[in-house]
Amino acid sequence: MKEIRANDNPVIRQFRELSLKKHRDRQGRYIIEGPNLLAEALRCEAALGQALFDAQALAKSKELQALAHRIETAKLFAATVPPQVFAKAACTDTPQGVMAWVQKAQWSEAQLFSQEGGNIVVLDRIQDPGNLATILRTADSAGFAGALLLKGCGDIYGPKAVRAAAGTLFRLPVLLCEGPEQALGLLRRYRKRIFATALDSSLFYFRCDLRRDAAIIIGNEGNGICEELLAGADQKITIPMKGKTESLNAGVAAGILIYESLRQNDTGQNTEE
Amino acid sequence: MKEIRANDNPVIRQFRELSLKKHRDRQGRYIIEGPNLLAEALRCEAALGQALFDAQALAKSKELQALAHRIETAKLFAATVPPQVFAKAACTDTPQGVMAWVQKAQWSEAQLFSQEGGNIVVLDRIQDPGNLATILRTADSAGFAGALLLKGCGDIYGPKAVRAAAGTLFRLPVLLCEGPEQALGLLRRYRKRIFATALDSSLFYFRCDLRRDAAIIIGNEGNGICEELLAGADQKITIPMKGKTESLNAGVAAGILIYESLRQNDTGQNTEE
Repeated sequence: MKEIRANDNPVIRQFRELSLKKHRDRQGRYIIEGPNLLAEALRCEAALGQALFDAQALAKSKELQALAHRIETAKLFAATVPPQVFAKAACTDTPQGVMAWVQKAQWSEAQLFSQEGGNIVVLDRIQDPGNLATILRTADSAGFAGALLLKGCGDIYGPKAVRAAAGTLFRLPVLLCEGPEQALGLLRRYRKRIFATALDSSLFYFRCDLRRDAAIIIGNEGNGICEELLAGADQKITIPMKGKTESLNAGVAAGILIYESLRQNDTGQNTEE
Repeated sequence: MKEIRANDNPVIRQFRELSLKKHRDRQGRYIIEGPNLLAEALRCEAALGQALFDAQALAKSKELQALAHRIETAKLFAATVPPQVFAKAACTDTPQGVMAWVQKAQWSEAQLFSQEGGNIVVLDRIQDPGNLATILRTADSAGFAGALLLKGCGDIYGPKAVRAAAGTLFRLPVLLCEGPEQALGLLRRYRKRIFATALDSSLFYFRCDLRRDAAIIIGNEGNGICEELLAGADQKITIPMKGKTESLNAGVAAGILIYESLRQNDTGQNTEE
């Protein structure tokens, strides 16, 4: 394994750059941290670039040593760096001894839409990195085909989202698209039925058939779903609110809708019938 | 309205103190920020203590002026302070022109358990303030009777949780209890059926009757539900995972279970039948 000591080494500099969105966008790369996420990246055959180990942590940890061995076996670039250099290159306040950059997966339209009857979650300007990651993770857990992200969403490749997504980014097809018109066009072309939560709807979500070919839109945390998507939706639905709270957290609302689809598929029933 | 100018005024000092958990615990008070939360506190007749207005923001905002008028009409203490003093007293980086301290609600056992057939969410060492607040908010939205918080949970009265709970703290009965034994004793005394999610269960949550008298336990973000609660549960249930993700976010898992209860009640059906 190589050894890097200088803070201004180009490898280190690139890690630092990738903590900024503009560099992630430009280079199409992002950073993952910690042995769990690296092991998952190897398992999923994600496009791992360079890995950095904190020399001191590596010397002490069998887990990191095993990981280093796997990375070398895979003939990937890896280097050790002194702890203080590692800490400066890391995005998080609690570095976990190893980090790497990964090439963003380039998912195609075909990959998102090829699953027969597959359901899709559509994110309209979801801002919070925790919400973004949580929704992708929930969609993955429920066996959704993937996600369509409209322009205006936060960056799913930022450090907080990457951590919270816990490997989902390596697996779940995610397609970015320009705006509502393009999204609606795509969804219609693939014959998805489009569901949007709307305050003025009285159709409870569990009274809809969400089993197959459903595209479920989750709207911005403060403002909900944009007018164009609402107008283009096949059904406006609502999540009943019995208390005096005005709204649910976006990640929770997504979880409720996504898992209702799974429930209907598993039990072979929905309330419509 | 009074005017306070000095940073070391005892009123200001108390606001600064209440940003720390030990002072919130000792005084039984917490801080709310922003006009929306204050208006909600007035509407819910929460035990508002003293309110502080940023003098400069107050002069510019009709919303704050209306709020100040309501506070004075209610004969509550309110004072204006210079912007820089206000900013130092505030918990958040983006102060919203008004803040107040509130006496914590003292919910009784009777208030939590009086609702005929009421469902309850039980939180076992949930740490993240966002998760805590989200789960309480979801329980409130679904018409749950309240929440039982076991020792070891994060502080629901910290600034991040208070903000994310969006007024739920004024309304939803929340009882703190020492540990698993006390919690199980209470739940049994009130004839609740206790549901715990467990990795080794194959009983899908939607195959259980969650309509009435259900106590749903949500476990710690990293370690799940403790042994004692698992052993004491009436049914171990699981949320199906179709992807390769190992677990769901705790707030999302809670949302899925809580809303399944609402769905069963609304449709009068559960899959068991």
